[in-house]
Amino acid sequence: MNALKERILKHGKSLGSGILKVDGFVNHQVDPVLMDACGAEFASQFKAVGATKILTAEISGIAPAVMTGKHMSIPVVYARKSKPITMPDQVFLTLAPSHTKGRMVELIVSPEYLAGGEKVLIIDDFLASGATILGLVRLAQTAGAEIVGIGALIEKSFEGGRTALESLGVPIRSLACIKSLEVDKITFVD
Amino acid sequence: MNALKERILKHGKSLGSGILKVDGFVNHQVDPVLMDACGAEFASQFKAVGATKILTAEISGIAPAVMTGKHMSIPVVYARKSKPITMPDQVFLTLAPSHTKGRMVELIVSPEYLAGGEKVLIIDDFLASGATILGLVRLAQTAGAEIVGIGALIEKSFEGGRTALESLGVPIRSLACIKSLEVDKITFVD
Repeated sequence: MNALKERILKHGKSLGSGILKVDGFVNHQVDPVLMDACGAEFASQFKAVGATKILTAEISGIAPAVMTGKHMSIPVVYARKSKPITMPDQVFLTLAPSHTKGRMVELIVSPEYLAGGEKVLIIDDFLASGATILGLVRLAQTAGAEIVGIGALIEKSFEGGRTALESLGVPIRSLACIKSLEVDKITFVD
Repeated sequence: MNALKERILKHGKSLGSGILKVDGFVNHQVDPVLMDACGAEFASQFKAVGATKILTAEISGIAPAVMTGKHMSIPVVYARKSKPITMPDQVFLTLAPSHTKGRMVELIVSPEYLAGGEKVLIIDDFLASGATILGLVRLAQTAGAEIVGIGALIEKSFEGGRTALESLGVPIRSLACIKSLEVDKITFVD
């Protein structure tokens, strides 16, 4: 998606060690008009998968997921990383490594909002190693839901996440797929 | 706003101790179509304040804030509760009590995205005691920005937040203002 790639080239920053700083338009500061366009693009790419619910992880998956949900008119569930007092005691919980936090984090979903029979589209900001998305997959499968698609704003193809997810046999789409990140040089897959 | 009030009556749950569970449509599970309508309503109510940026707090402020930002075509900044590795060492930081976590949390904004001269509209999910929003006010004022309005999806008028914020002299709007919360009985201010 050209608008996203252009923004990454203009305002993204490759910090080294495979870290891409996009907190001027994706996380921390969000460009809601760009996120809306990304949501429309995901809705178009996944219109045939029959999704009944979008699943993402707090925090930075929320903006693209709610925009996609708006265009598809389906609810969005974001897995929590800590259990709020309003959540029942019995939950779906898994652990996933956090790239930016350098430790394992919990991903928690209430059974109230993820049930057997749901067709789940996973939307997140990044597809890197795939570890967070695999955590979301485990939560959905534990709930008896079916994964029908996976979308990420930005894919770092050199971290192997797509390979880790391919056995699910569902469409995996990213709107900007990065081949390599050198300091001050971002190269996309064509 | 009737659509939000009706949803609160239908799917909200008063759990006692002043806690209103709305995690079927505001936090945890989000109804993005309803959030879009709330964003349109905020954009209409605040169209005259000249906002250049929306400020909110992660996590549950993000959905209503990005929808409002989309309708106003201005960026959204969400204060982080922990500092990601992509953030510079020098930040704006304040502490605010978290109602749902029962402890103080940090609210952190990078000076890259909040600067002097900005006209800041604060959008959050709840206006209760006003403590989180006052934290956002301190961050904006420290940055030299001006607060031009405050909007919350749901106000709990009996917790006094509006009084705590009135000295700012800016418009304060909520889309559903609750007068009292008894177990299984939610009463709105007319």
